[in-house]
Amino acid sequence: MDQRELTHFNAQGRARMVDVSDKPATKRKAVAVSTVRMAPETLARIRQGGVEKGDVLAVAQVAGILAAKKTPELVPMCHPLPLTGIDIRFAFPDDRTLRIEAEVTTTAPTGVEMEALTAASVAALTVYDMCKALDKAMVIGPTYLVEKRGGKSGDFVRDEAPDAQWG
Amino acid sequence: MDQRELTHFNAQGRARMVDVSDKPATKRKAVAVSTVRMAPETLARIRQGGVEKGDVLAVAQVAGILAAKKTPELVPMCHPLPLTGIDIRFAFPDDRTLRIEAEVTTTAPTGVEMEALTAASVAALTVYDMCKALDKAMVIGPTYLVEKRGGKSGDFVRDEAPDAQWG
Amino acid sequence: MDQRELTHFNAQGRARMVDVSDKPATKRKAVAVSTVRMAPETLARIRQGGVEKGDVLAVAQVAGILAAKKTPELVPMCHPLPLTGIDIRFAFPDDRTLRIEAEVTTTAPTGVEMEALTAASVAALTVYDMCKALDKAMVIGPTYLVEKRGGKSGDFVRDEAPDAQWG
Amino acid sequence: MDQRELTHFNAQGRARMVDVSDKPATKRKAVAVSTVRMAPETLARIRQGGVEKGDVLAVAQVAGILAAKKTPELVPMCHPLPLTGIDIRFAFPDDRTLRIEAEVTTTAPTGVEMEALTAASVAALTVYDMCKALDKAMVIGPTYLVEKRGGKSGDFVRDEAPDAQWG
Amino acid sequence: MDQRELTHFNAQGRARMVDVSDKPATKRKAVAVSTVRMAPETLARIRQGGVEKGDVLAVAQVAGILAAKKTPELVPMCHPLPLTGIDIRFAFPDDRTLRIEAEVTTTAPTGVEMEALTAASVAALTVYDMCKALDKAMVIGPTYLVEKRGGKSGDFVRDEAPDAQWG
Amino acid sequence: MDQRELTHFNAQGRARMVDVSDKPATKRKAVAVSTVRMAPETLARIRQGGVEKGDVLAVAQVAGILAAKKTPELVPMCHPLPLTGIDIRFAFPDDRTLRIEAEVTTTAPTGVEMEALTAASVAALTVYDMCKALDKAMVIGPTYLVEKRGGKSGDFVRDEAPDAQWG
Repeated sequence: MDQRELTHFNAQGRARMVDVSDKPATKRKAVAVSTVRMAPETLARIRQGGVEKGDVLAVAQVAGILAAKKTPELVPMCHPLPLTGIDIRFAFPDDRTLRIEAEVTTTAPTGVEMEALTAASVAALTVYDMCKALDKAMVIGPTYLVEKRGGKSGDFVRDEAPDAQWG
Repeated sequence: MDQRELTHFNAQGRARMVDVSDKPATKRKAVAVSTVRMAPETLARIRQGGVEKGDVLAVAQVAGILAAKKTPELVPMCHPLPLTGIDIRFAFPDDRTLRIEAEVTTTAPTGVEMEALTAASVAALTVYDMCKALDKAMVIGPTYLVEKRGGKSGDFVRDEAPDAQWG
Repeated sequence: MDQRELTHFNAQGRARMVDVSDKPATKRKAVAVSTVRMAPETLARIRQGGVEKGDVLAVAQVAGILAAKKTPELVPMCHPLPLTGIDIRFAFPDDRTLRIEAEVTTTAPTGVEMEALTAASVAALTVYDMCKALDKAMVIGPTYLVEKRGGKSGDFVRDEAPDAQWG
Repeated sequence: MDQRELTHFNAQGRARMVDVSDKPATKRKAVAVSTVRMAPETLARIRQGGVEKGDVLAVAQVAGILAAKKTPELVPMCHPLPLTGIDIRFAFPDDRTLRIEAEVTTTAPTGVEMEALTAASVAALTVYDMCKALDKAMVIGPTYLVEKRGGKSGDFVRDEAPDAQWG
Repeated sequence: MDQRELTHFNAQGRARMVDVSDKPATKRKAVAVSTVRMAPETLARIRQGGVEKGDVLAVAQVAGILAAKKTPELVPMCHPLPLTGIDIRFAFPDDRTLRIEAEVTTTAPTGVEMEALTAASVAALTVYDMCKALDKAMVIGPTYLVEKRGGKSGDFVRDEAPDAQWG
Repeated sequence: MDQRELTHFNAQGRARMVDVSDKPATKRKAVAVSTVRMAPETLARIRQGGVEKGDVLAVAQVAGILAAKKTPELVPMCHPLPLTGIDIRFAFPDDRTLRIEAEVTTTAPTGVEMEALTAASVAALTVYDMCKALDKAMVIGPTYLVEKRGGKSGDFVRDEAPDAQWG
């Protein structure tokens, strides 16, 4: 086994929530992205909602924020962490694509990559749910980590294609 | 507005959980797929786990099953439904790809597309979590609906490329 | 003890979730109201939000809908019910008052009064949370049942003062 | 494999939530027992609480009722069921033993054994929690199914020693 | 926008969970009150329960304590906090009124006003639930913050009419 | 009342979540054990699962880890704590007995005894659930605290019979 061992496994070869009680609490940040691809008419409808009351993106954003806080009950080996900030942003890189970006911060012994990925994923699922009467063929993903700051393993920044226009 | 109206919105233009009290409970099934793409060495490690105790896929599968049951608390406009079955299967279509298929059934007035999509998504997130020490660049998705049976809007079957070998 | 006995108590004088397995599932509806009273400037800010992206009421409404579904885990003796519809509406009867109306439906052996009251209460708490930096002296309530339909105990309609203008 | 196969496993040898969509909903009941054994002084303190405000057993009973409703999120392969009744009773068979009996009913395609066992277990854990400052050596269990009614597999009644005096 | 800006909104005008990672953890306390107004006979029944086993107030108090811990999953923009204490007290200021006071403490970067308000509100909802067979016209509220200690924005103490007799 | 008072009760004689805001956060560990006794054929089936995909113990272990994190929502007077590690191990002391050992760590003002006991109990319930088609007479328990480290009340180590062979 190489040095980056799969620390989720105990001496019996079973999964565990790794003991981090000897790691110091430090400031952490993670940013994750998910996308929903759909018919242009569906995306147009979502964008129009942006200027009305009760839009799809407002519901998706609340769902994503709540999901970040639920991460340790959804992803079994995640540690419960005192999240200090959650922000979800939307962009429309082209006429078929909704980009969802989730940023999560904490001061804790472990990072918040899973919280950011979970927030983005559940926001995307909520968009699917609210538009599925129009378009069942929508596709969620790719979903991935964009940036991770803090912690002993160092920073991680993904090289993304410059495809997003924040509006 | 066309006939397939966005029934998630009420008369004030705000979102609601649509009233389905006049729809009969009928048998429903939905199948959704998610994928996790990763380095071949990471996938090899996961597959080896398949013959050991406490493997990644066993944890992901439990996480996915539990997540299906949590769908109405994650996706705000989803109805709580008496799920009658949840099954999660894994396949390895190539040496970089884990395919996760979630099948959910119920007898209810609305369908279980969101439950299947949520199960597949959370199983994928769990795989990411358990392998992220090895490979932070893993990508989740595409995640999409493969099949939907039952309900007044009719069946839906997606035409997938024949890329999956179930093993 | 009179005929409308406190059926939440068992033979040992302790609380229980009353056995309703011999009651038929019938269509039910309940409507509850809560109010938040605040400084006129605070209410004006909320109303302006109604024409912007990401308004207070959109968040409160999602919170209320999710809370209705959580009622049996919040109110200990409530039965878990297959809710079929949840709708939350807002009105501004005067320049200091936000009125929140929650309507819940089901087909079940017991009613959904608690679900409607819980939805209205949590929507009100969310409004408080989002505006408390402006106005800590906001007051929630009165919160009460307006209407209950279905079930053996008959319908209930509260006589309200005609103070609400739905807009 | 004999006829009473382990139906929790799918064709890949993995766990699943078994599909019960072809089983009819019928009336079901299950009764489970747990016990907490402790020093006589601890039990005496609990019993005195029975005549005061805010007693240990009142808290344990609420905890047990809420836990029955949480069973499908705690026990991964359990189906979500519309529980119709939950009752928890206490007895003191001797001066060191608290007996906790949980009875759960539903009308559903599967039984409520796990709901009754979970309610009794969590009530016992709550008693331990509230008395652990006095007595860390308390022991929970045996915890077992006493009675199961309804369903195709037939009734089950356990032969218990006549050790309980309900008071 | 004045200085007490609505910090729940991000640069896109959407709600977020505000980043508090640069605020120090300090000791905090909040006290909130809710009331339930009802027919004198209903209140008399509740008070008698106070000297029996399994009373209404014991259930309401457990519900309120559990609800305080659920605040960040109920109120979307609330931070998850390590609550250090929760206490709920009851008073009977007159023969139609139950006063519920909830006190919550923590050591954290943000305050616990919402936790105290949520605890008081859910305790009130539970009283309504357990007595609604007797009296559907009960009214919950006013519900408000009485006291807030700690944090940069300073202390807040509400001037209440001297109407409560704690007994 | 002796010195080890029942601190879960407030001045009104009602339960509360004790205020620990003046206690320092220190490193804590607790180990708890539960057992499941069953027919030898049932235990043999579980052990064989250990060399297959998707075994009973893998599901039980995930369930136990998730349950540890849910302790403060299950056991009403428990404080929410930032758990830093959860590990669950299995042993087979004889051909009828599965021993489940749960170890939980944190750095917090209170201990994690309840988290360890809850993890062991829910893992045991999950084993029961997955094998109940084979053997309804299985018995859970004794369940007890084995070891507690850290905190002002000092360490606790239970004297167990040397009956467990860890394999």
